Amino acid sequence: MNNDLKVFDELESEVRSYCRSFPTIFTKAKGYKMWDVDNKEYLDFFSGAGALNYGHNDPNMKEKLIEYITHDGITHSLDMASTAKADFLNKLNDVILKPRDLEYKVMFPGPTGTNTVESALKLARKVTKRTEVVSFTNGFHGMTIGALSVTGNSFKRKGAGIPLHNAITMPYDNYIDENLDTLDYFERYLEDGGSGVEIPAAVILETVQGEGGLNTARFEWLKKLESICNRFDIFLIIDDVQAGVGRTGTFFSFEPAGIKPDVVCLSKSIGGYGLPFAITLIKPEHDIWAPGEHNGTFRGNNMAFVTATEALRYWEDPSFEEGIKKRADKITTFLDGLIEKYPEMNGYRKGRGIMQGISSDIEGFSEKVAELAFEQGLIMETAGADDEVFKLFPPINIEMEALEQGFKKIEAAVEAVAKEKELVTS
Amino acid sequence: MNNDLKVFDELESEVRSYCRSFPTIFTKAKGYKMWDVDNKEYLDFFSGAGALNYGHNDPNMKEKLIEYITHDGITHSLDMASTAKADFLNKLNDVILKPRDLEYKVMFPGPTGTNTVESALKLARKVTKRTEVVSFTNGFHGMTIGALSVTGNSFKRKGAGIPLHNAITMPYDNYIDENLDTLDYFERYLEDGGSGVEIPAAVILETVQGEGGLNTARFEWLKKLESICNRFDIFLIIDDVQAGVGRTGTFFSFEPAGIKPDVVCLSKSIGGYGLPFAITLIKPEHDIWAPGEHNGTFRGNNMAFVTATEALRYWEDPSFEEGIKKRADKITTFLDGLIEKYPEMNGYRKGRGIMQGISSDIEGFSEKVAELAFEQGLIMETAGADDEVFKLFPPINIEMEALEQGFKKIEAAVEAVAKEKELVTS
Amino acid sequence: MNNDLKVFDELESEVRSYCRSFPTIFTKAKGYKMWDVDNKEYLDFFSGAGALNYGHNDPNMKEKLIEYITHDGITHSLDMASTAKADFLNKLNDVILKPRDLEYKVMFPGPTGTNTVESALKLARKVTKRTEVVSFTNGFHGMTIGALSVTGNSFKRKGAGIPLHNAITMPYDNYIDENLDTLDYFERYLEDGGSGVEIPAAVILETVQGEGGLNTARFEWLKKLESICNRFDIFLIIDDVQAGVGRTGTFFSFEPAGIKPDVVCLSKSIGGYGLPFAITLIKPEHDIWAPGEHNGTFRGNNMAFVTATEALRYWEDPSFEEGIKKRADKITTFLDGLIEKYPEMNGYRKGRGIMQGISSDIEGFSEKVAELAFEQGLIMETAGADDEVFKLFPPINIEMEALEQGFKKIEAAVEAVAKEKELVTS
Amino acid sequence: MNNDLKVFDELESEVRSYCRSFPTIFTKAKGYKMWDVDNKEYLDFFSGAGALNYGHNDPNMKEKLIEYITHDGITHSLDMASTAKADFLNKLNDVILKPRDLEYKVMFPGPTGTNTVESALKLARKVTKRTEVVSFTNGFHGMTIGALSVTGNSFKRKGAGIPLHNAITMPYDNYIDENLDTLDYFERYLEDGGSGVEIPAAVILETVQGEGGLNTARFEWLKKLESICNRFDIFLIIDDVQAGVGRTGTFFSFEPAGIKPDVVCLSKSIGGYGLPFAITLIKPEHDIWAPGEHNGTFRGNNMAFVTATEALRYWEDPSFEEGIKKRADKITTFLDGLIEKYPEMNGYRKGRGIMQGISSDIEGFSEKVAELAFEQGLIMETAGADDEVFKLFPPINIEMEALEQGFKKIEAAVEAVAKEKELVTS
Repeated sequence: MNNDLKVFDELESEVRSYCRSFPTIFTKAKGYKMWDVDNKEYLDFFSGAGALNYGHNDPNMKEKLIEYITHDGITHSLDMASTAKADFLNKLNDVILKPRDLEYKVMFPGPTGTNTVESALKLARKVTKRTEVVSFTNGFHGMTIGALSVTGNSFKRKGAGIPLHNAITMPYDNYIDENLDTLDYFERYLEDGGSGVEIPAAVILETVQGEGGLNTARFEWLKKLESICNRFDIFLIIDDVQAGVGRTGTFFSFEPAGIKPDVVCLSKSIGGYGLPFAITLIKPEHDIWAPGEHNGTFRGNNMAFVTATEALRYWEDPSFEEGIKKRADKITTFLDGLIEKYPEMNGYRKGRGIMQGISSDIEGFSEKVAELAFEQGLIMETAGADDEVFKLFPPINIEMEALEQGFKKIEAAVEAVAKEKELVTS
Repeated sequence: MNNDLKVFDELESEVRSYCRSFPTIFTKAKGYKMWDVDNKEYLDFFSGAGALNYGHNDPNMKEKLIEYITHDGITHSLDMASTAKADFLNKLNDVILKPRDLEYKVMFPGPTGTNTVESALKLARKVTKRTEVVSFTNGFHGMTIGALSVTGNSFKRKGAGIPLHNAITMPYDNYIDENLDTLDYFERYLEDGGSGVEIPAAVILETVQGEGGLNTARFEWLKKLESICNRFDIFLIIDDVQAGVGRTGTFFSFEPAGIKPDVVCLSKSIGGYGLPFAITLIKPEHDIWAPGEHNGTFRGNNMAFVTATEALRYWEDPSFEEGIKKRADKITTFLDGLIEKYPEMNGYRKGRGIMQGISSDIEGFSEKVAELAFEQGLIMETAGADDEVFKLFPPINIEMEALEQGFKKIEAAVEAVAKEKELVTS
Repeated sequence: MNNDLKVFDELESEVRSYCRSFPTIFTKAKGYKMWDVDNKEYLDFFSGAGALNYGHNDPNMKEKLIEYITHDGITHSLDMASTAKADFLNKLNDVILKPRDLEYKVMFPGPTGTNTVESALKLARKVTKRTEVVSFTNGFHGMTIGALSVTGNSFKRKGAGIPLHNAITMPYDNYIDENLDTLDYFERYLEDGGSGVEIPAAVILETVQGEGGLNTARFEWLKKLESICNRFDIFLIIDDVQAGVGRTGTFFSFEPAGIKPDVVCLSKSIGGYGLPFAITLIKPEHDIWAPGEHNGTFRGNNMAFVTATEALRYWEDPSFEEGIKKRADKITTFLDGLIEKYPEMNGYRKGRGIMQGISSDIEGFSEKVAELAFEQGLIMETAGADDEVFKLFPPINIEMEALEQGFKKIEAAVEAVAKEKELVTS
Repeated sequence: MNNDLKVFDELESEVRSYCRSFPTIFTKAKGYKMWDVDNKEYLDFFSGAGALNYGHNDPNMKEKLIEYITHDGITHSLDMASTAKADFLNKLNDVILKPRDLEYKVMFPGPTGTNTVESALKLARKVTKRTEVVSFTNGFHGMTIGALSVTGNSFKRKGAGIPLHNAITMPYDNYIDENLDTLDYFERYLEDGGSGVEIPAAVILETVQGEGGLNTARFEWLKKLESICNRFDIFLIIDDVQAGVGRTGTFFSFEPAGIKPDVVCLSKSIGGYGLPFAITLIKPEHDIWAPGEHNGTFRGNNMAFVTATEALRYWEDPSFEEGIKKRADKITTFLDGLIEKYPEMNGYRKGRGIMQGISSDIEGFSEKVAELAFEQGLIMETAGADDEVFKLFPPINIEMEALEQGFKKIEAAVEAVAKEKELVTS
C-alpha cells in the first residue's frame, strides 16, 4: 500500500474526520511516536483524545496482552464472570479506590464514553424518579441521543435530527464574567418555584472541558456545586472520560476539589492500551439497578481488563503522579512563554495538568497552528466551539526530552502563523 | 482464584446479569468450548449472543492478531487512516459487497450495536428531514436513548427513566393472526391523513428478532415492506447486529428476501474474534454526513480491523455458507423431533438458520431447560418478553459432532423439565 | 355595510376558514334559520358544528339571558361561587346525572373543547402517574398542544411545528376490516411486554367521530373497551364535545352502550345558546386536583350558566329525546333513499342520530354537494380527512317540515353533482 | 338560596380555587362593586384578574349587548363572517392600530388566553421552521400543554403530568442582580455554538408579569430584547393578556418601550364586558397560516364582538388614557406611603400602571392582608410563586373616591397584619 487515501474516499463514509486533518495512513506506533506507510515519524501530542494517556503500545501491557491471547484467555463473555474481570475489579479497588477513600460499585455499561454517560443518566433518573438533567455550557458527553441531550455543541446536537429533551444547560464556571458566580444563578433557579426549571435528577459535568475548549472549573466552584446537589438531593455525575486517568495530574480529575461524586464516568484511558472500555462508578447506596436493566454485547472486553489491570500498576508508585505534575509544570511554563513571546496570537492559556492549550482570539489561528505542526511531524488537536484552542495532549508519562522536541515544533508553527497573520491584519 | 463469585458481589454493580444465569468464573475458551476456573468444560451454544459466530479464539484470527500486536501495529487511532482499516474496507468490499451486488459506504459509528443503530437513525432523519421512526413489536435495537426508543421491551424501556419519543411501534409479521397482513395495516396508517401517524423518516427492523423471541419475518413480507418504504420515501434500516454475519445462513440475513436496505447495521460478529466493533452500511446517495457529525473515541478499533479482515476470508469459499445451512437443517430436524417427542412442552419451533429455538407455552419451562442444560455443561440463553424461548446459538461453523453432543444435553434437560412439569400440572 | 368580504381579507388572518366555504356576511339567526346582510335566508344544517343543537337564539334561553343581563347579574367571576353557577350545578345533577345513575364532579376547565380535553388528560396522568395516552385513528380533540397530540389529522398535527409526544394511535372500530377486532389488537399490545407500547394513563375517544368522517363505534366495542380499561386501570375518557348533548339521540352519546366513563368532556351545546362553555365530568374518586392546579380566566362564564341551565329544562320532558329519535329516523330514511337513487355517488351512510351523512368515494363529490347546497340556501359541512363526507347537522329539535325543506335542497345538490360527475367520468 | 357553599363542595371539582379565597356566593355586580346573596357589598380590586378593566357590566356595553340579543343578532357562527365581527375589526384598526402606527392582521384563536398563546407559538414555529421557544422566569402564559411549556410556575407545570419540552427559560429583567444584564447572558447563549441552546423560534414574555409577582421589564431592556430578536430572526411575542388593554396606562403595555412585536396576544379585557374572547395580532408578513390550520368552535363569540367594539370607543378620547395614569399615580403614592408607614411589612412596590402591589418578605404577610381585606369587603389577589405580593387591580376607570375607599380597607388590613406579625416575631 502506498500512502494513498483513495480507498477511504471511495469506501468510507463522509462522516470521517480526523483522517482529514491528518491526511496520511498510519501503520505503527510506540510510546509517543507514530509512523505512517512512508515510514515518516510523528510526535503524538493528541493521544487518541485522551485514550492513550500511557502512550501507544506500552510494553508491559503488550506483554500481558500477548500472553493472554496466546493462552486462549476468554476474549468475549458478555457480562459473565471471568478471571480477567475479577483481577481488574480487585486492582481498581486496591490501587485506586481504597487509597482515595472512595467506595464505588463498578458497572460495565458498554465499552465507550457515551455508554457510560447514558448509564449514569438512567440511574440518576431511576433513583431520583425525576426526569431533567442539568449540564453545562460547552460540555461534551457523547453522541447517542441520551448523551447528546446533555452536550452543548450545536453542530453535534443538530445531528440528532430531533429536538433534544429533558436537559437544561446552565452556565459553567466563569461563563459570563467575574461578577456572576454561575452557581448562585443555578441555585436561584432551583429555589425559585417560578423559574421554569424543576429540580433535576442529576447534574453532569467535566471538571475540565476537553472538547469544549479546555474550560476549567475552580475547585471551590466544584465544592459548592456538590453542596448544592446535596441540598436538593441531586445526583452529581462527573464525566471523567477525558480528564480522568491522570490527565490532569491525579487519577480522578476531581480529587483536588475534595468532592465525592455520586457517579463517575470513565472510559478512554481506563483501558490503558487504547482498547474500547468504559466503566461507571456508583456509590453503593445508589446501586439499585435490576439485573440486565442496562446491558450490551461488549460490556466485558476481557482484553481491556488485562491491559487495564496492568495499567493500574503504574499508580502503585507515588512517583508516577509526581512525574505527571512535573510535565504539567513544564507545559505551563512553555505556554506562558509562548503567549508572551507572540502577542500577535492574542492568546491565553487554558486547562490544567497535561490538558492545557492556548486559546487565540484571532480567527483560524489555532487551526492553522495545528495544521503547520502536522506538516512538521506533530499531531495535535484543536478544541472549542470555533476550534479556537490548540491543545497539548501528549502521553502523561512522555519523556521530558520528547516534550521539548514537541515544544520546538509547536513554537515553529506558532511563529509561522503569527507572522502570516501579522501580514494579513496589518 | 477459586471459583468464588464474592468479588463480583462486592465490587460489581447489581446490573450484572449473565453471570447470574451462568454462575461460574470462566478463564479460557476455544471454538465451541469454554472452561471455568475449576477446569470444568462447557459447550457454548450461546456464542456471545451472536458475537462469536466463528467460535472462540479462532486460530487464524489469533495468529494475525498476535502478529499485529507484536509488531506494534496501531492499536488506537480514532478515525485516522490506518493500513488495518484500509485492508478491512477492501476485503469487505471485495468479498461481501461486490459479489452480492451491493454498493455501500462504510461508517464506523463506535464499536457497539447501539452505536450503529443511533447513527442509522440520525442519518435517516437528516436525509428525510422527518423525525419519527417506525419499529416493530418485540424489536430490540440497543440501550442508549435513541436506540431504546425503537426497542419494544417494556422493562428495558422503563429503564430510560423518561418517556421515549419519536418512535411508533407497528406489528411485526404474524403479530396478530393469519387474517391480518400487518403491512396492510401499516400502509393504511401511512395513506390515511387522519391516522395520527405521520410519514416516518425510517423503518427499522431485524429480519429475525434475536432478543424478542426469534420471531421471523417472511421474505415476501420483507419485500413488501421494502416497496412500501420506496413508495413513501422512507429509509429501510435492517438491524443485522445479531442476525447478520452468517447467523441465518447467508452473510446478511436479508439476502434471501432480495431486498436492498438503505442502511444496514452490523456489529457483534463482524469483528470476528469478539472484539468491540460495529459498522453502518449506507447507500452512497444517502452518505451526506458532515465530517465529524457523528463521532466517538473507539470508532477505529484496529485490532478488530485485523480480525474482521481475517474472518471475512471464510466467505471467499462458497462451501462455508453451505456448511452453515447443513448445520441449520440439522438443528431444525432436532428441534422438530424434540417437539414431537415431548408434547408436554407445548412447544413450537421459531427462528431460522443457526438462530432457532423452541417456544414453550408452559410458564418457566424454557428458563428451566436452560438452567438444567448449564448444570450439564451447556451454555444456552432464553429469549422473548417472558423468556419463553430457549435458543440454540452455537458457532455457525461448529463441528457436526459437537452439535450432536449439545443436542443430547439439551434433550436431557428438556426431558427432566417435562417430567417435572408433568408432575406439577397433573 | 354591504355584503363585501373586503374587511376580512384586509384585516383578518389567513387562518379563517368557514367564511371561505360560506362567503357571505351573516347578521341574524333564529332557530334553524340564518340571514345575511342582503337578507337572504339560509337553512342551517351545520349548527355551529354541534354548538347549536337547540338552534339559534332559543326564545326561552334568550329571555332568561336578557333578564340576567338587565339585572346586572354577575358576568365574569373567574371561578368564584355565583348563584348562576349553583343553579347550573343543581340542574345538571337533577335533570341529567341522577336520572342516568351517573355520579360526577363538575370541573370548569375553561370555555372550549380543547380546554376540557387538556384538563382530562392532565387528570388522567396525575391519577395514574403514567404519561402515555391512547387515542384513535381519525379522532379529533382540539388544537392546543396537549389535545393536538391525541388528534389524528395530519394537517392539524403539522400545525404544531413540533413533534407531538406521549400519545399512541390505535385503530378505531372497523378501521381495518371485519376480520380484525381492533380491540383484540389493542389488548395484545397491552398484554405483550415487548410491544413497545406501555400501559397508558388514558384512552380518549369520541363514540361518533365528528370531524373524522362520522365513523361510529359499535356499542359492544365500547363496552369491551371499557372492560379493557378496567382490567389495566386505564382512564376511559369520552370526548362528547360534538356527539354529546343530544346529538346522537340521548344526552350523552355513550348511554346506549351502557358504559360509565371515568371522565366525560362536554362543550359546544352544553351552553345551549352558543356561548363559550365547557365542563369536565369526573368520577368523584378521581377528583384529586389540588386547588388551582388547572385554571383559566373564563372558567366561569355566567351567561352560559344561565342559558345552559335553561337548556337542560328541555330534558325534563321525555318526549324531547323521542323527538330527536324521530328526526334521526327521518334522516336515515332520506339518506338511504338518496344513496339508492343516485348510485353514481357511490355513497354509504355514516354516523348515527342527528349526526349522519354520506361518504362518497368519488373525489370532490361531497365538497361539491355542500357548495351547491349553499348556493341554494342550505349550510352544511363536510368531514373526513379528505372531506369525503357531507354531514347533516340540523338542530336536534328542528321542525319536521324544515327538515324536509332541507332534504329537497340537498337532493337537488346531489342530483346536480351526480349528473356532472357522470359526464366527467363517462 | 342562602349563602351556603355546600352545592359547590358536593358537585364542583376540587380544582376550584378563588371561591376558597373569597368564600361567598356572588349575585350581582356593577362597576367596581359586587354583591353576594346576603346583599353584602364588596369593592372589587381584582377585576377578574384583568378581565374587567372597565369594571362590571358597563352600561354602554350592556345596552348594546341587550339590543343585539333582543334583535336576534348572530350569537355563534364559528369563523363565518358576521356584521358584528366586521364592526370589531374596523374599530380595532381605526381606534387602536392605525393611530399607533401598528399594522397587524387579526386572528381569532379561540376565546381564551391560552388559546392565543398556543396560536402564537404555532405560528412562530411555522414561520421560522425552528422548534424551541424562550420564555422567562416567572412568566405565566396558560394551562394547555403548549402554553404551560413556556410558563415558569413549578406547581402549574407539574400539573401537566408529562415533561414539558421545546422551551428554555431565561432570566427576566433584574432576575439576578444589578451586576448582570440578563440579556447579555441570553445573547451569550445565542452566540455561543457550544451553549446547548439553539436559536429559538420565538421569545415570549409579559412586560409586567401578572401572575409571577408584578416583575417589570425596563423599557430599554425590552428595546434591547427586540434588537436581539431582530439580529437572530427570532419572533418577539408579547403576551399582553393581563397587562394589555390599558392596565399599565397605555392600550398595549409595550407602547412606552417603542417596540413592535411580531405577535401580540390579547384576551381578558379585550372583550370589554368579561365575555370569553381572545385575539392574536400578527405582522402581515408572518400571516402565512393555511385556512383552518388552527381553529376552534368559539373563535367567533359575536356577543364579545359587540361589547369589545363598544369598549374600544373609550379609547377614542385621549382623556381616557390620562385618567388611567392619574389613578396609577395615586396608587403609587399610596403604596409608597404604606411601605414607609409600616416598615414591619418589609415591603417594596412592584409593577406599574394600575398593576401594582407590594411584595413583603415576611412569610404569609401578603396572603393575610388579602384575607383581612376580604373580611372588610375588598376583593384583592396575591401573586408570585409564594404569594408574596398583594396586588391592586381595580378597574382602570374606577372613581377616585372609590379608590380611596379601597385604600382605607387595605391600610386597615396591613395595619392589622403588621401588628400581629410584630407580636409574633418580637
